[in-house]
Amino acid sequence: MLQGLFFNEDCTDFFYARPKEGVTGTDVDAFVDRLAGLGVSALLVNTNAQRTNYASEVWEPFWTGYDPAGPDDQPVFRHLPADRIPDTRRLLDNMIALAAAGVDYPARMIERCRERGVQGWISLRMNDLHDVDLLDAPLLSAFWKSHPEFRRVPYRFQGWTDRALDYAHAEVRDHYLALIDESLARFDPDGLELDFLRFGYHFRIGHEREGGRILTQWLGQVRDRVRDWARRRGHEISLGVRVAADPIASRELGMNAVAWAREGLCDLVVPTPFWTTCDFDLPMELWRDLLAGTDTALGGGLECRYQPYPAAPARMVTPQEARGAAAHVWAGGAGVLYLFNYFESMHFGGAWTAEQYDQTLRAMGSLDGLVKLPRTHVVTFRDTPAPGVPVAHALPVQGPLCAFRLQTGPRPTSGTAEVVLGMEMPEGAVPPRVRVNDHLCEEGVLADGVQRTPVPLEALVDGITVIEVESTAPHPSITSVGVSIAP
Amino acid sequence: MLQGLFFNEDCTDFFYARPKEGVTGTDVDAFVDRLAGLGVSALLVNTNAQRTNYASEVWEPFWTGYDPAGPDDQPVFRHLPADRIPDTRRLLDNMIALAAAGVDYPARMIERCRERGVQGWISLRMNDLHDVDLLDAPLLSAFWKSHPEFRRVPYRFQGWTDRALDYAHAEVRDHYLALIDESLARFDPDGLELDFLRFGYHFRIGHEREGGRILTQWLGQVRDRVRDWARRRGHEISLGVRVAADPIASRELGMNAVAWAREGLCDLVVPTPFWTTCDFDLPMELWRDLLAGTDTALGGGLECRYQPYPAAPARMVTPQEARGAAAHVWAGGAGVLYLFNYFESMHFGGAWTAEQYDQTLRAMGSLDGLVKLPRTHVVTFRDTPAPGVPVAHALPVQGPLCAFRLQTGPRPTSGTAEVVLGMEMPEGAVPPRVRVNDHLCEEGVLADGVQRTPVPLEALVDGITVIEVESTAPHPSITSVGVSIAP
Repeated sequence: MLQGLFFNEDCTDFFYARPKEGVTGTDVDAFVDRLAGLGVSALLVNTNAQRTNYASEVWEPFWTGYDPAGPDDQPVFRHLPADRIPDTRRLLDNMIALAAAGVDYPARMIERCRERGVQGWISLRMNDLHDVDLLDAPLLSAFWKSHPEFRRVPYRFQGWTDRALDYAHAEVRDHYLALIDESLARFDPDGLELDFLRFGYHFRIGHEREGGRILTQWLGQVRDRVRDWARRRGHEISLGVRVAADPIASRELGMNAVAWAREGLCDLVVPTPFWTTCDFDLPMELWRDLLAGTDTALGGGLECRYQPYPAAPARMVTPQEARGAAAHVWAGGAGVLYLFNYFESMHFGGAWTAEQYDQTLRAMGSLDGLVKLPRTHVVTFRDTPAPGVPVAHALPVQGPLCAFRLQTGPRPTSGTAEVVLGMEMPEGAVPPRVRVNDHLCEEGVLADGVQRTPVPLEALVDGITVIEVESTAPHPSITSVGVSIAP
Repeated sequence: MLQGLFFNEDCTDFFYARPKEGVTGTDVDAFVDRLAGLGVSALLVNTNAQRTNYASEVWEPFWTGYDPAGPDDQPVFRHLPADRIPDTRRLLDNMIALAAAGVDYPARMIERCRERGVQGWISLRMNDLHDVDLLDAPLLSAFWKSHPEFRRVPYRFQGWTDRALDYAHAEVRDHYLALIDESLARFDPDGLELDFLRFGYHFRIGHEREGGRILTQWLGQVRDRVRDWARRRGHEISLGVRVAADPIASRELGMNAVAWAREGLCDLVVPTPFWTTCDFDLPMELWRDLLAGTDTALGGGLECRYQPYPAAPARMVTPQEARGAAAHVWAGGAGVLYLFNYFESMHFGGAWTAEQYDQTLRAMGSLDGLVKLPRTHVVTFRDTPAPGVPVAHALPVQGPLCAFRLQTGPRPTSGTAEVVLGMEMPEGAVPPRVRVNDHLCEEGVLADGVQRTPVPLEALVDGITVIEVESTAPHPSITSVGVSIAP
């Protein structure tokens, strides 16, 4: 069974985050070496959105139609906002430079992984929709642009996912199968990941269950191809999938990962949020129950953002929060902890220091490592609902008694713990009292809209923390909730 | 594996709904005969709340402390609202009369069941809390009254479940074990049901997972006793449980039905709502996946009320709605359809005719029977959340695009279908347009705040219906949603 810390490197980060002078094969090696040094078990090299970041022979590379010597108003940029053009040019220039130097980026990544004892995977986004609000852009494929009739919601446009490709069409499946075939033939990966959570919506509204049956059958074809290449290569090639965090949502969206595991169609299932917010309440035990008895490993997927409720401002997770989410994944019985969008350079530029990044990734390889560092578990919500399903969220909330249930990993045996509440205090409001697992805590300290309430360790239990906040009128409005644990 | 239509007869209905002149053994037989004639496969005779409806030797009967010849201000009624006293006296008088006539009610029920080829079960409520806001009442046991220290939420009173008994105490478990032992020894049932959903909350807040481990271990003891009695009786005795509708909620509340099934501790798991509203969205496929490979049958539990969202007015379900909920249970893969609170006399006095009751119960025995009658699937919400978990609800809602996902059973191949929307129309609002599974329907007819939109059969799919409601400003406020199917 697969296990360890899995790291997804998206198709643009490597090229986007580096200076314009170009990138080299040595940079690729150094990238792998750094992750290997942090204890990453598998590097999932994402090679595509709607185009590829290498000189594919079956899909267009990102730089198709781009003239590096041309002006900013060349056709491929005509619908792109002007402020995105410099960064896009750097991205494309770097891709071109690496390919021109004879370096096949995914192949080089995988070769270096093998040298370093890290599993090297190809990760394919199965329905990427970045920029589909534009009429043209370097991210959009000719296939997508020329087939509006394949869009899953052809009758309106409310968001990118409305313009996802509908996998009920054989042409769509064939389009992706071509890239799968090339990935298996051209590279020599230890695994192939089909990232169905980019963007998670693959069928017409209401037709997702029928679609799911098509997708399951199609996955069988992919499985056959993977097995065939494993025989040719003389080593195992794993097949993994990223799906929605909630098993019902996942199946209702046509991604029946439980059936896939039970039919032996995949070796790794990674339930994960989409992007909106890291999900600190991943239903790991339920997934573990569902995959029990299969040969499929269970992963828990972390995203990089934190948003306590749908209308709330979002920010990057803190290192403490990322460790909290990771601790729950391990404690919940996962074999794999899976990081998505955890790029040192791009998202965390201002949010994490290099030291925090190193320390956190190193610790994430095991629960033992994580519990030695401070961690925070917070209340968020679950994105990627099936169409028509309401999203539950605990925040914001106001009233005499507000309760929150957090999955908080193993009960600490030493150190300190506190409940951290973000609140808006109406005129005349007094700080609320906090109970943890029915234990009434000493009064907390309220400063700048944040109340910190110490929690005695004996009030904590394994796996779960229930916080009850009792207030008198006028009641505070609670906007964020967390449990911070320091060893 | 257990299968068929299971009918729960609660501990008071038989006595409460009949005239004061008393009940006889013949009435018991007639009650069973009537259900047998309607195709009921198993009758689950509930014998207790906090007291028993027969002359138990280990618990108090309901009539303990009651003097039939005494006045209305006798001690046992002193905290009961005056308007409840006449009905309560009739209840108690009937219980006393039947016992005095030498009829052991549960035994007689089960004997008659056996004669009629119906499974006769004893169903025990594992934590009944009716009237726990009162200081005394005929429903409250001496055990409960004398042990306030066993209450799961001792520090406040917000609702009956706060005063549930905490099964972490051996005394509480022993108290119920005594009743189980008596039930097995005194009666000769085909099955024993532990109704953990009366009322679903059995442990201190935050301590439910620890509690669940205790409960699982304890269930093993019950299982041993059931097996022992099966050997003595020379016939199988099934063990069933009623648990929360959602598998995560159920486990988080300490009712780990998945573990119970996998450890062989029970023969039937019935996920069900508590009471607030019948749950038209029971996650049957998820439960089916979770119980797959075990010898435990899956039931789907119906309740008798309809409430579209938590603050909405509630009413009894219509026969059409009950059939809709039932059709989903069968179509979702259940082996058992389980009716709770479906008393002809009590709740449905004014809501269903005898003909509707007969017709509906007869049809409920199979999906084939149900699809021959009109049925309605509606949007409701899920009660019985674990403490601190927010409840998702789709209604009421207002906006340019509102979507709803309903589990609607098999796709009809003939007949008619319509979407029924309850709406409040602000001044100047125009009727919204309705899409079903991405098919734009013809305009509906709006009258008295209800819009009925015909749906062509070719727009329907198996299992699911997604309704999108598109409106221009000012938007209607949608307060109820249903899909009605007529063969």
